[in-house]
Amino acid sequence: MAKFMDVHHGMQGITAEQLHQAHDADLAIQSEENVVFEQAWADPESGIVYCLSEAPSAEAVQRIHERAGHPADEVHPVPLTV
Amino acid sequence: MAKFMDVHHGMQGITAEQLHQAHDADLAIQSEENVVFEQAWADPESGIVYCLSEAPSAEAVQRIHERAGHPADEVHPVPLTV
Repeated sequence: MAKFMDVHHGMQGITAEQLHQAHDADLAIQSEENVVFEQAWADPESGIVYCLSEAPSAEAVQRIHERAGHPADEVHPVPLTV
Repeated sequence: MAKFMDVHHGMQGITAEQLHQAHDADLAIQSEENVVFEQAWADPESGIVYCLSEAPSAEAVQRIHERAGHPADEVHPVPLTV
């Protein structure tokens, strides 16, 4: 398992409710890929959403996001944390 | 006070020690701008570093990063969290 930060662009105008719904859609199926989505942060103005997860691979993170209807534009391992 | 995510590019090869030193340099002066750096995540391969903070403004975050020697390439307010 490793930590990943993934980034979604083009989410201008996202509301708190939409962020919650998107996150819940991930949580509902994440165990099928052994992914744990931990936190997400959104900027409705620039349309960027950041998601932090623990997962076996970047591909596993992306498969959950794709199946939940919101593929990420970038998925980066973040092995260093402070 | 609001939450901000800032992003640094071009940090390929960053080590755990360098990330800690950079973070410590921020912590040493952050109170002068009422910024609180909370967490940071780094991907040495793509050279991206993400920093999460609480701050009065994006400019305050950037001033601390600049004075600490590592200006951010992007600073985004992230008013929505999940």
